[in-house]
Amino acid sequence: MATAGVADAKGTGGTDKMAALKEIYNKLKAEVLEDHAVEITNESAVQWIDRMVDYNVLGGKCNRVLFVIDSYNILKGADVLSQEEIFLACTLGWCIEWLHAYFIVLDDIMDNSQTRRGRPCWFTVPQVGLIAINDAIILRNHVPRILRHHFKGKPYYIDIIDLFNEAEFKVVSGELLDLIITHEGRKDLTRYNETIYRHIAEYKCAYHSFYIPVACALLLAGENLGKFGDVKNILIEIGIYFQIQDDYLDCFGDPEFTGKIGTDIEESKCSWLVVQALEHSDENQKSILFENYGKSDPACVAKVKDLYKELNLELVYREYEREIYIKLIADIEAQPNKAVQAILKSFLHKIYKRQK
Amino acid sequence: MATAGVADAKGTGGTDKMAALKEIYNKLKAEVLEDHAVEITNESAVQWIDRMVDYNVLGGKCNRVLFVIDSYNILKGADVLSQEEIFLACTLGWCIEWLHAYFIVLDDIMDNSQTRRGRPCWFTVPQVGLIAINDAIILRNHVPRILRHHFKGKPYYIDIIDLFNEAEFKVVSGELLDLIITHEGRKDLTRYNETIYRHIAEYKCAYHSFYIPVACALLLAGENLGKFGDVKNILIEIGIYFQIQDDYLDCFGDPEFTGKIGTDIEESKCSWLVVQALEHSDENQKSILFENYGKSDPACVAKVKDLYKELNLELVYREYEREIYIKLIADIEAQPNKAVQAILKSFLHKIYKRQK
Repeated sequence: MATAGVADAKGTGGTDKMAALKEIYNKLKAEVLEDHAVEITNESAVQWIDRMVDYNVLGGKCNRVLFVIDSYNILKGADVLSQEEIFLACTLGWCIEWLHAYFIVLDDIMDNSQTRRGRPCWFTVPQVGLIAINDAIILRNHVPRILRHHFKGKPYYIDIIDLFNEAEFKVVSGELLDLIITHEGRKDLTRYNETIYRHIAEYKCAYHSFYIPVACALLLAGENLGKFGDVKNILIEIGIYFQIQDDYLDCFGDPEFTGKIGTDIEESKCSWLVVQALEHSDENQKSILFENYGKSDPACVAKVKDLYKELNLELVYREYEREIYIKLIADIEAQPNKAVQAILKSFLHKIYKRQK
Repeated sequence: MATAGVADAKGTGGTDKMAALKEIYNKLKAEVLEDHAVEITNESAVQWIDRMVDYNVLGGKCNRVLFVIDSYNILKGADVLSQEEIFLACTLGWCIEWLHAYFIVLDDIMDNSQTRRGRPCWFTVPQVGLIAINDAIILRNHVPRILRHHFKGKPYYIDIIDLFNEAEFKVVSGELLDLIITHEGRKDLTRYNETIYRHIAEYKCAYHSFYIPVACALLLAGENLGKFGDVKNILIEIGIYFQIQDDYLDCFGDPEFTGKIGTDIEESKCSWLVVQALEHSDENQKSILFENYGKSDPACVAKVKDLYKELNLELVYREYEREIYIKLIADIEAQPNKAVQAILKSFLHKIYKRQK
């Protein structure tokens, strides 16, 4: 599967709120650029970083920032956040967006993707090419600098560092699993199954895009993450649901809305759709899949899409969506803490039945 | 310039010492593999990481590990280190090697290099390709895990984390400067000069390969790094000298010894040699340089090499080496602390007049 962009989920941030988030982003960017200016004293290089950060960190709907600030707001009680608290929560949210930007720049190179968020992937921009690798690493390096600048001395500083390191470790583990499994799947498509699929989705997407924002808000609110194991599990399940939507939209979505042209079939990805297809196919249908999946020839891609339609995967998807929604609502309502319930429901409703 | 491999400097580790280092490496690797096994539960993926770590972290002479342990030994007084102290010092040294492995894997992709340490660059190994990008990130991720595992709770834990983050930030800043300057130099070779050269060399090589090992030893010994500004400057100067050697060997070295085939001329790199050539050339010689530098045609490369010989750059290099040695020894002997003097001299003598 390709890396899902939560930034493309349904946004709930109003114009004022977005302007406030952008102002904080500008402040954080100015600080890292100042760091670079001191270090490299080369104007072209600093301008390059300025443009590169804007291109890759912005461009989505900043949902990770919204996830942190909204969660923190609910935890603390509405409308009681000070300017400082808002700033710190948004800063953590932006750090997650920065980390995500780092992942997608590299992921797009490795997957040879061409479009992301409705425009060319960074490495395909003229004069960028493989410099994008170093650019991604620069984005990664901004995260501990921002954290140190604004959180060093806070009692939860080390926990935040550990959390971000853990998030990155999960993503690279998921990416490796994805690469290895795709390699095996190219030779033998039956290697793909639901268990492996969920594992990759949890690691590549759910953990850093859904769990980390809430974990940041909990740490900011002085909570002990160890106490919230069930919440973590629900967030991971929401994240897997999000990745399944992404895989569905890769094939059945409208590129006008999603901002990217799907390539999961051509790239032989362990997508939710192919896992479902394998599960619902008879021997004859399976051989159509084996013959055509993972080939860039448009005729082969069309045959796979026809099979998906024949197998009624759109209906299978709708049924999954209906069931997971009911299950998640039940799990959320079983949570003892009303504020936590509100956070989880807001996440679920932000992505439920999304088209992009 | 290409990223210099200190691991190819003159090694002083005896066979027993190397076996002890290797044993510690095996323990650290086993720990990270165990972490992966828990996370990804896929045997092929864990085997992949095992092979990838060996391929990229080993293969040099482990001089960064030797730098840390030797420095720490001298600081504490010879032969008084406990097994625990040796283990911790070597662990920090291995973390620097791990970080270096991450840099060279990416650097080789960005420079399209073919050989490193006498064998194919990782990304050119069959079935690796751009998976090498994720592999590099995995190597990077091992560092905070190893540090957390063995240093969390130590009074200097945060300082060590900051030091490694700073090292990485310097390297990526140097890499960016190198990429931007090479891009500008391709259009106008006169952009290359001594100041820019030293800047890149300090950031890409000197800081993490020479300063960080000593800084690690100082932190382990309970020293405050702020007190050792002069020592840092000397180590940076030794590091720049090392990079100059690397650039010299890129053209004049024997690939049998150096383990890599130089491509600085073809790649239009801001090498020490081209900076010297620009400085020592008359107008006629400069136009030969402008016409032939940065071209992959072997005839052009030969013309540049002929010009280097005509300009007697081998002699210029020997003269630089003689002078920097005298200057460094004077600076070192001006240091008040005898143990620190011994560390710096050991570093200098480890690389002085190296052929590989």
